[in-house]
Amino acid sequence: MQVALLGGTGDIGEGLALRWAYHTTHEVIIGSRDAEKARRKANEYKTELESRGEETEIAGFDNKTAVKHANVIVLAVPPYHITETIETIADSLAEGDVLVTPATGIKRDDDGFHYHRPQAGSVTQLAADAKPDEVPLVGAFHNLASGRLADLDVDLNVDTLLVADDDDAKETIRKLAQGIEGLRPLDAGSIANAAEIEALTPLLINVAMNNQGMHDLGIRFR
Amino acid sequence: MQVALLGGTGDIGEGLALRWAYHTTHEVIIGSRDAEKARRKANEYKTELESRGEETEIAGFDNKTAVKHANVIVLAVPPYHITETIETIADSLAEGDVLVTPATGIKRDDDGFHYHRPQAGSVTQLAADAKPDEVPLVGAFHNLASGRLADLDVDLNVDTLLVADDDDAKETIRKLAQGIEGLRPLDAGSIANAAEIEALTPLLINVAMNNQGMHDLGIRFR
Repeated sequence: MQVALLGGTGDIGEGLALRWAYHTTHEVIIGSRDAEKARRKANEYKTELESRGEETEIAGFDNKTAVKHANVIVLAVPPYHITETIETIADSLAEGDVLVTPATGIKRDDDGFHYHRPQAGSVTQLAADAKPDEVPLVGAFHNLASGRLADLDVDLNVDTLLVADDDDAKETIRKLAQGIEGLRPLDAGSIANAAEIEALTPLLINVAMNNQGMHDLGIRFR
Repeated sequence: MQVALLGGTGDIGEGLALRWAYHTTHEVIIGSRDAEKARRKANEYKTELESRGEETEIAGFDNKTAVKHANVIVLAVPPYHITETIETIADSLAEGDVLVTPATGIKRDDDGFHYHRPQAGSVTQLAADAKPDEVPLVGAFHNLASGRLADLDVDLNVDTLLVADDDDAKETIRKLAQGIEGLRPLDAGSIANAAEIEALTPLLINVAMNNQGMHDLGIRFR
């Protein structure tokens, strides 16, 4: 597969890019609004992987060009940029492409972190509303601590939850997730079930903040 | 400690009653709106424990009387009975008592199970709003599968999350939770953080429904 990470210069994008490049043979492409930044980051990731004896080509492009080179497009951008990002790349999407959103809405107050649920029902639904009808969308990789993901020395040993209204697209992303060592994909049903997954992320932060020795938390269902 | 389980004749109440009676030396008291039902269930639990060589006294009373015998009162009732139950027992609460709520709001549609968040912000907050000011309340035991909890042959190996605005009360319930073998209590902060914990329960059901071989799910933070 050719996997483009739009926002692949940010925390979660970096971790996913490194893990796919390190654990799998998928082609990893970094996308950014700024093509120069995408190329710079792609080179940083290559250097990191070379230091581990992994010779991999990672390309960096502006978002539209990155999408043209990929058949899986991960929208690793903040929730408030999701709609705009999808509108920008819509014309570059082709039949057979799959969109993936790992974004969640979080707000903070004096008590801790809380789920900031958009009017649409979830950030995943927000992305689904913005996308072209013929391109399926999968919600996945919401609850992964970016620090842990980007540190290839750390065993993940966590679960990630998938939601989609298209079973084939969900299966494609399930396999893509399974390629990352220590990451177990679990099916959480349709996009209508996304809010409860997105709400997990602020909870993970609250638990990390309130319990000594816990940080970069993930979750296991058992 | 003397632990009263109001709604101790229902699923989650049964599991907590059996686990505390089996794993700890705390006195377990079953409360119900119907005293006769409470006594009958208490006897059933005693019989179950006797079959495992555990001789324990478990009393059954109407809710008000159960509260008078206890210093920890677990409101193991459905969310829509929380306010009424607290109002019924308010006069029976004494200084030093701690209220505990494991209730969460769930609704179901064709896609799956969803968190039904009350106007108050969470079911835990609903309970906090109904209780007397001088009695602290702790949210705990929200995400435990009742079947797994009530089957003493099954190792739990799951986490439970605590929220409270009173640190001493939270510590009391942390110790009480820790007494149950295989249950790890984690601090999730104040009651304002309860909604994200309550939302986990429908997610656990969705994951169980969509993945073969998964049932009675719990969660581990790691």
